Amino acid sequence: MKTIDIIERIKTLKTGLYGKDFLLTWEKSEDDLKMILDVAQTLKQLRESGISPKLFDSGLAISNFRDKSTRTRFSFASAANLLGLEVADLDEEKSQIAHGETVRETANMISFLTDFIGIRDDIFLGEGNKYMREVGEALDEGHAKGVLPHRPGIVNLQCDKDHPTQSLADLLHLRNTYGSVEALQGKKIVMSWAYSPSYGKPLSVPQGIIALMTRFGMDVTLAYPEGYDLIPEITDIADRNAKKSGGNFTITNDMKEAFVDADIVYPKSWAPFHIMEQRTQLLKAGDKAGLQELENKALAENAKHKDWECDVEKMKLTKEGDALYMHCLPADISGVSCKEGEVEAAVFEKYRIRTYLEAGYKPYVIAAMMLTNRFEKPDRILAELFTKGKKRVG
Amino acid sequence: MKTIDIIERIKTLKTGLYGKDFLLTWEKSEDDLKMILDVAQTLKQLRESGISPKLFDSGLAISNFRDKSTRTRFSFASAANLLGLEVADLDEEKSQIAHGETVRETANMISFLTDFIGIRDDIFLGEGNKYMREVGEALDEGHAKGVLPHRPGIVNLQCDKDHPTQSLADLLHLRNTYGSVEALQGKKIVMSWAYSPSYGKPLSVPQGIIALMTRFGMDVTLAYPEGYDLIPEITDIADRNAKKSGGNFTITNDMKEAFVDADIVYPKSWAPFHIMEQRTQLLKAGDKAGLQELENKALAENAKHKDWECDVEKMKLTKEGDALYMHCLPADISGVSCKEGEVEAAVFEKYRIRTYLEAGYKPYVIAAMMLTNRFEKPDRILAELFTKGKKRVG
Amino acid sequence: MKTIDIIERIKTLKTGLYGKDFLLTWEKSEDDLKMILDVAQTLKQLRESGISPKLFDSGLAISNFRDKSTRTRFSFASAANLLGLEVADLDEEKSQIAHGETVRETANMISFLTDFIGIRDDIFLGEGNKYMREVGEALDEGHAKGVLPHRPGIVNLQCDKDHPTQSLADLLHLRNTYGSVEALQGKKIVMSWAYSPSYGKPLSVPQGIIALMTRFGMDVTLAYPEGYDLIPEITDIADRNAKKSGGNFTITNDMKEAFVDADIVYPKSWAPFHIMEQRTQLLKAGDKAGLQELENKALAENAKHKDWECDVEKMKLTKEGDALYMHCLPADISGVSCKEGEVEAAVFEKYRIRTYLEAGYKPYVIAAMMLTNRFEKPDRILAELFTKGKKRVG
Repeated sequence: MKTIDIIERIKTLKTGLYGKDFLLTWEKSEDDLKMILDVAQTLKQLRESGISPKLFDSGLAISNFRDKSTRTRFSFASAANLLGLEVADLDEEKSQIAHGETVRETANMISFLTDFIGIRDDIFLGEGNKYMREVGEALDEGHAKGVLPHRPGIVNLQCDKDHPTQSLADLLHLRNTYGSVEALQGKKIVMSWAYSPSYGKPLSVPQGIIALMTRFGMDVTLAYPEGYDLIPEITDIADRNAKKSGGNFTITNDMKEAFVDADIVYPKSWAPFHIMEQRTQLLKAGDKAGLQELENKALAENAKHKDWECDVEKMKLTKEGDALYMHCLPADISGVSCKEGEVEAAVFEKYRIRTYLEAGYKPYVIAAMMLTNRFEKPDRILAELFTKGKKRVG
Repeated sequence: MKTIDIIERIKTLKTGLYGKDFLLTWEKSEDDLKMILDVAQTLKQLRESGISPKLFDSGLAISNFRDKSTRTRFSFASAANLLGLEVADLDEEKSQIAHGETVRETANMISFLTDFIGIRDDIFLGEGNKYMREVGEALDEGHAKGVLPHRPGIVNLQCDKDHPTQSLADLLHLRNTYGSVEALQGKKIVMSWAYSPSYGKPLSVPQGIIALMTRFGMDVTLAYPEGYDLIPEITDIADRNAKKSGGNFTITNDMKEAFVDADIVYPKSWAPFHIMEQRTQLLKAGDKAGLQELENKALAENAKHKDWECDVEKMKLTKEGDALYMHCLPADISGVSCKEGEVEAAVFEKYRIRTYLEAGYKPYVIAAMMLTNRFEKPDRILAELFTKGKKRVG
Repeated sequence: MKTIDIIERIKTLKTGLYGKDFLLTWEKSEDDLKMILDVAQTLKQLRESGISPKLFDSGLAISNFRDKSTRTRFSFASAANLLGLEVADLDEEKSQIAHGETVRETANMISFLTDFIGIRDDIFLGEGNKYMREVGEALDEGHAKGVLPHRPGIVNLQCDKDHPTQSLADLLHLRNTYGSVEALQGKKIVMSWAYSPSYGKPLSVPQGIIALMTRFGMDVTLAYPEGYDLIPEITDIADRNAKKSGGNFTITNDMKEAFVDADIVYPKSWAPFHIMEQRTQLLKAGDKAGLQELENKALAENAKHKDWECDVEKMKLTKEGDALYMHCLPADISGVSCKEGEVEAAVFEKYRIRTYLEAGYKPYVIAAMMLTNRFEKPDRILAELFTKGKKRVG
C-alpha cells in the first residue's frame, strides 16, 4: 500500500493513544491497534525509501531491562534513534524487586529530560505489569507536581502478562502476509506449546498472541500439554475477544489435532502458570534449594512432552501442508541450537527468513507507540515527514 | 524571572569560566557561581518552553565513573544530550587507582573527538580530586603538543573534596525557593550528620554545602556527633568564606541545638574523616580483613547515634516549625528504606516532592558548566538560542 | 596539504571500496588504501577546522567487541558520532564462540536499522576473521531476501589475522611524518618482537604491519626470537607484496641486527603462532588446567628473551640513532607499567607524544572506512561538506 494511502487511512481512525502508556493490548481499542500498525508501516516505508522520520532534536529514551535481552534491546534502541532520541540504559539487578519509594524516586530521577521509558520485566508473575504501573503513577505525580516538565510515556517491552511490541509486530507480519486485517477473519492460528530443554520461559508471548489475534475474528487455537495453563485471566480475555469479534477461541491438549487445517502455527515453549507462581514465591523468599528442586521437577515434566515438536509430519496436517510458521526468536531448533527442541530443523529452515521478516517489524511498532503517545494527530505529522522528505543519509 | 531578563543579568557577570575545568566551587568567584546558576536556569526555561538549546552538532561527552551512580549518571547523560553531545562511558574497576602513564595516556586516547569528561571519583580520600587534576594536566599536554585539536573540559561529578554539581543544584533550588541569592543572606542552614545503617558515605556533599553556602552570607551550622569531622582544610574554607561574605559558620555536636530556628536543614550521613583516611590506606594495601574490622568498628560507632534522626520533634524546633528539608537523595528513610535512618518517614514525605525538584536542577547545572567552559559569551549564545527558538519536538 | 588538494587527489583514485566490508588490507588495492588515507586525512582536517562531516541524520553503528578494549572502542564511537551515527554495543561473553544459526540470526536481528557493524574478535586463531565473514554472509542473505533494507558494512576492528584500522592509522602517521606515501619507498621499518611479562598478545598488529608496509616499497624487517613465528600465510603475503612493490621483506632472529640503520622501529610483544594455536584448541575444549600449563610454559619461554627490549643502546644502532619509534599502545614500559617490558622508559618518553599522535588517526581511519563503504564518490561528498562548511559547535 502506498505511504500516502496509509496516511489517509490513519486519518479515519479514532484513537485514545495520545498521552497514554502502552501496557496491554487489551486496554486498547481496535482503532488504537490499527493505528499502531499503520504508523509502524508508514515509518518503515519512509525509512526504507531513505526518508528520515526524525521528530526529536534531542531527548532521552530510557531502556529499563530487568532481564537479559538482545533483540528487544536493539529494537528499542533502533526505534529511539529513528525518532531522534538517545538511549540511556538503566540496568538493575534482576533479582531485585524494588518497590515503593525506590521506584517512585528513581522514576523521577531518570526522567527530568526523558521522553520515553521502555520497560522489560517478565520474570516475576504478578510483578512486571504492576511495576510498570507503579512507575507510571510516580511519573504522573512528578508531572502534576512540577518535577517533570513532560510526562514520559511508558512502553511495555514485555511483562508477566503481555508482550505487546511482539504481538503487534506479529500482527503486522500477518497483515502484510495476507493483505489486510480483514483478510485475517476466520484464519486459523495455532498458538502451541512446544518442547524446550530450558525452563522458566515467560508466558507473555502466548498470552499476548491469544489476546490480540482474537480481536480480529481469527480462529485461535491454544494448544498445550495438560498442566501448562496460561494465566486464567488472560484466557478469559481471549475468550471474550473471540465472541465479540466473531472469531473463535479453543483450548486443546493435542498438538496434532490443533495443527489440522491451520493457516498459521506459532509453536513455542513456556513454563506452566502454576510453576511460575511457585517460582515467584521461591525467588521472593530467596529459597535457592527450592528453586533448584522446582527446576528439576519442571524439566522432568517437560521431558515427558518431547513429542510436542513442530516437525515436518505435523506441518503436513496444516492447510495444504503449508501453514505459516511463526516464532518470536530465538527458537530452540532440534539438532541446531539444542538436541531436541521446539521445531525440526527442516521446518525452521523453510520459514527462517520469514521469522526474520516478522522480527523486523518490532522497531517500527515501538516507534509507532512512541509517536502516537506524543503526537495527537499522527496523520498530520507523518504527512509532513513524507512531504518534507528529508534524506537520512548524505 | 523571565528568560530574557536572566540573559540580561548574565551580561553583567564577569567570569573566568571559559576554557576552565569545574573542579571545586571554592576555586571559582561569586560571579562564576552566579553565572552557573543563571545559565542553568536559562537552559531549564528554554527546554521547558519547548526550545532546544542544542549547541553541538556532534561530539562526545565521556562519563568516567569510578563509583556506582544512577542519579548523577543520568544527569550527565541528560546534560550532554541537551547540548547535542553523545555520552560514551569509560568504566573502570573501582578498586583500581590508576596513576602516571596510564592516566596520561588514557586521558588522551579517549579525547581525540571529545568535548567534555565528567569524572566521579569519591571513594579514596586524597585521590579523587588529584586524579581529576592529573587527567587535566594530561589533556593540557595533549592539546599543547597537537594531539588533541580541542582541550576537553572536565566536570567534577563528585570527588573526595567537593560535589559541585550537587551543591550548585542545591543553591539553585534555594535561590528559586527564596527568590534571589540576596535573599539567602542571614538564612540559617543546618548541614547535619544523620544516622544511617550503612557506612563509608562520602564527605563531599556536606563539604560542598558548607563551602558553598558560606559564600552568600548564609548562617551555616555544621552539626555532627563528636568524632565525625570533615576534612579540616574544608571547614577552614567555610570559616573564611563566612567571614568574607558577612555570614556565619558554626560547628556543634548537638543536632537539636543546631535545628533551633533553622530556615533550612540538610540531614545526611557521612563517614568520619579519620575513618575514610584509614579506609583509603587499607584499600590501597588490599587489606580485606582490616577493612572488615574497620567497617564493624564504624558501624558500631554509628549505632551509638541513632538519635541523630531528622524527626518530627526536631523539625518543630526550626523556624516556625517549618524549615525547608533538603537531601541529595536517596535518603535513608526510617521504616521505609531501612529500619532506622536519617529521616522520619513523615518528615520525608512532607518534603519528598521538594527533594525531587531539588534534584531536577542537576542536569542543567552540568549543562551550564559545559556551556560556560566552551562559550566565552554565554549571554550571546543563550540570546541566540532564545531568539531562534528551535522547537525540540516535531 | 590543503583539504581541497586532497579532495582533488581523491578524484584520481580508482577504488572498489563502495559497498564492501573492510576486513583485510591485502584484499584491497593500493588505490583503496590510499583512498582510506586521504578520506581519513580530509575528515581530520574538516573536524579540526570546526567543520562537521555529519552525513547521517540517524542510524546505528554497532560495536561487537568479543574482547576488552578501550582505545578501539572509543575510536569506533568517535568515528560513528563524527558521521552522525549512534553506537549500540553488542557485548558477548568472550569465552563463547557462536556459530551457525546464532550468528546468522543475531546478525540480522541487530541490523534492521543499522549502517555499520564494527567487530573485534582477536582471541581465537582461525576464528575472528571467519566470524566476520559469517556475519557478512548472513547480512548478504538478509539483504537479498528483503529482511534488511540496507546491507550494513562491516569494519574489522581487529581479528586473528589483521588489524587494518591500526595499520592504516600507522601508515597515515608515517605518511604525515615523511610527507608522502612515495617518500616511504626504501625506508627501513623494523617490526620487532619485544619482551612482555604478559602472555597471549594477539598477532594481528605485527601481521597487519608487515602485510601493509610491504605494499609501498618499504624495507620491512620482521625480527623475533626463534619460535615466535607469525601465521605463515601472512609472512608469505608480506613476501609477495615486497617483491611486487619493489620493497624488501626480511626475517631475522636478532633484534640488534634488525635495528641497524632502521628509519622506523615498532617493538611489540606477541605470542608465538603455535602457542596461539594450542591455546585456541584448549579454549575450545575448555581445558583450564591445560591453559594454565600452556601459560606457564609460554611465560617461561618469554622470560628467556628479556633482552628483547627497545632500549637506548639499541636505538643508537638506528639511522642517525634517531629512528621513529612506533607502538599501538598501551606499551609495556620497563619500570613504569611493569618491571621489565617492551621498551626502556627513556625511549618511550622521547616518543610518547608521537605515539599519541599515531593513535589519533584511528577514529578518522574508521570513519573513512564507513564513508567509502557508503558513498560511491567520496570526493564529491567531501567537497560538498567542505563547501557547505557547517560549523560543528555553536
